[in-house]
Amino acid sequence: MTKHRPSILITNDDGITAPGIKVLIELMGELGDIVVVAPDSPQSGMGHAVTIAKPLRLDKVDVYDGVEMYQCSGTPVDCVKLAVNKVLHKKPDLLVSGINHGFNSSINVIYSGTMSAAMEGAIEGIPSVGFSLGDFKQDADFSATRPFVSAIAKEVLANGLPLGTLLNVNFPVGHKIKGLKVCRQAIAKWSEEFDERVDPHGRPYFWLTGKFLLNDKGEDTDEYALNEGYASVVPVHFDFTSYNAIPTLKNWNFNL
Amino acid sequence: MTKHRPSILITNDDGITAPGIKVLIELMGELGDIVVVAPDSPQSGMGHAVTIAKPLRLDKVDVYDGVEMYQCSGTPVDCVKLAVNKVLHKKPDLLVSGINHGFNSSINVIYSGTMSAAMEGAIEGIPSVGFSLGDFKQDADFSATRPFVSAIAKEVLANGLPLGTLLNVNFPVGHKIKGLKVCRQAIAKWSEEFDERVDPHGRPYFWLTGKFLLNDKGEDTDEYALNEGYASVVPVHFDFTSYNAIPTLKNWNFNL
Repeated sequence: MTKHRPSILITNDDGITAPGIKVLIELMGELGDIVVVAPDSPQSGMGHAVTIAKPLRLDKVDVYDGVEMYQCSGTPVDCVKLAVNKVLHKKPDLLVSGINHGFNSSINVIYSGTMSAAMEGAIEGIPSVGFSLGDFKQDADFSATRPFVSAIAKEVLANGLPLGTLLNVNFPVGHKIKGLKVCRQAIAKWSEEFDERVDPHGRPYFWLTGKFLLNDKGEDTDEYALNEGYASVVPVHFDFTSYNAIPTLKNWNFNL
Repeated sequence: MTKHRPSILITNDDGITAPGIKVLIELMGELGDIVVVAPDSPQSGMGHAVTIAKPLRLDKVDVYDGVEMYQCSGTPVDCVKLAVNKVLHKKPDLLVSGINHGFNSSINVIYSGTMSAAMEGAIEGIPSVGFSLGDFKQDADFSATRPFVSAIAKEVLANGLPLGTLLNVNFPVGHKIKGLKVCRQAIAKWSEEFDERVDPHGRPYFWLTGKFLLNDKGEDTDEYALNEGYASVVPVHFDFTSYNAIPTLKNWNFNL
């Protein structure tokens, strides 16, 4: 009996040369036939942006020996759309995005290009997982994440994912990860802060900065798990309806 | 007794000169003290993108007489962050985004800069509403939407919104809107399609296009309401956790 070798699409938001995506390329190459379609430049914080006012470029590149790779001028979501439509011409068996340099836990799921790529995969009906490590540095050490990434990918390949669900997996920094916890998204936000400067021509400009504010004491959250030294796995969906709020709104009288 | 005049922040994703935002400026000016902070260029499809790798510009402009207006070089989400932190120096009583030229119903909520601005407002704790009309044209006729926009804004100013909830309001095209329906987000997706062309230098490029595919026969959805000639109001939240999937995942054995 010939075993079916799964097809695996790999993308990210840090760009095709980021160290994090190299880890996925190495690990997924052990599990299936891989194709990489990733941004040609860093796309952190792009959220679910798509490129509609500009044309897109897609170029085959030869970065790692024997790996089919394409770089795209667009966003992570553009990469997924182009990969399915113009490279694979089919849905892959698995989409993995990352490994992101920096956490995409709690509210970061909303801003993250890494997670938006995985969400776009799920919208397309592809079992999709976004992986992130809580270290922004270019030389972040991904070694402790490797067995977890492989185990999760194997499990998703074996079982699929519930319809309309993707996974947001985050890893704490360090040499030892205690285990894996299935969690909910913690309630948190970034305080908006801006570093105001003046350019050489006398005009002001702003750099977006901010502090992460955790407003959640729950022990079932991704932030709690990460702080305890565990990897967090949050199942995510793309039905943003606040069902709890529907009865309240139905009672409103709009005087129309 | 002096009646408190509410402060209202207005933004959009079609850019500060779009006809849709002018409608909000006119209508909100009747309800409170308005400030406009909007992108200096069209930002459709920007999703929840934030600008972290480039500095931002924020310039006071004088477009409509007597209206305090600022244009920002960033995304709709950047506009909201800058408005709260550098213009208002407080949370406004209401944030309205739009009126978008084009539907943001169903899955479009994910790609929409208009809705992401409203979502950012909700993350900040501001009662926030995104408005959209199903007409992409620059000369779209917003007249039928006006009483609905005012009624919804008044209701939100009077009652607030449930914590962590924003509203996604969509209007059908036409001279007559039958009424207003509180709905859930329809299950739908865009088929990814690309228009492939060759530039004058012989290199290929792609334009993102696509067809809207509605996979939902429910009569409680935004798409159903809009097709029936009603305005749709979907309460939206930013907890993307798929709670239904948590028990399934907890049963997985990751062999770690």
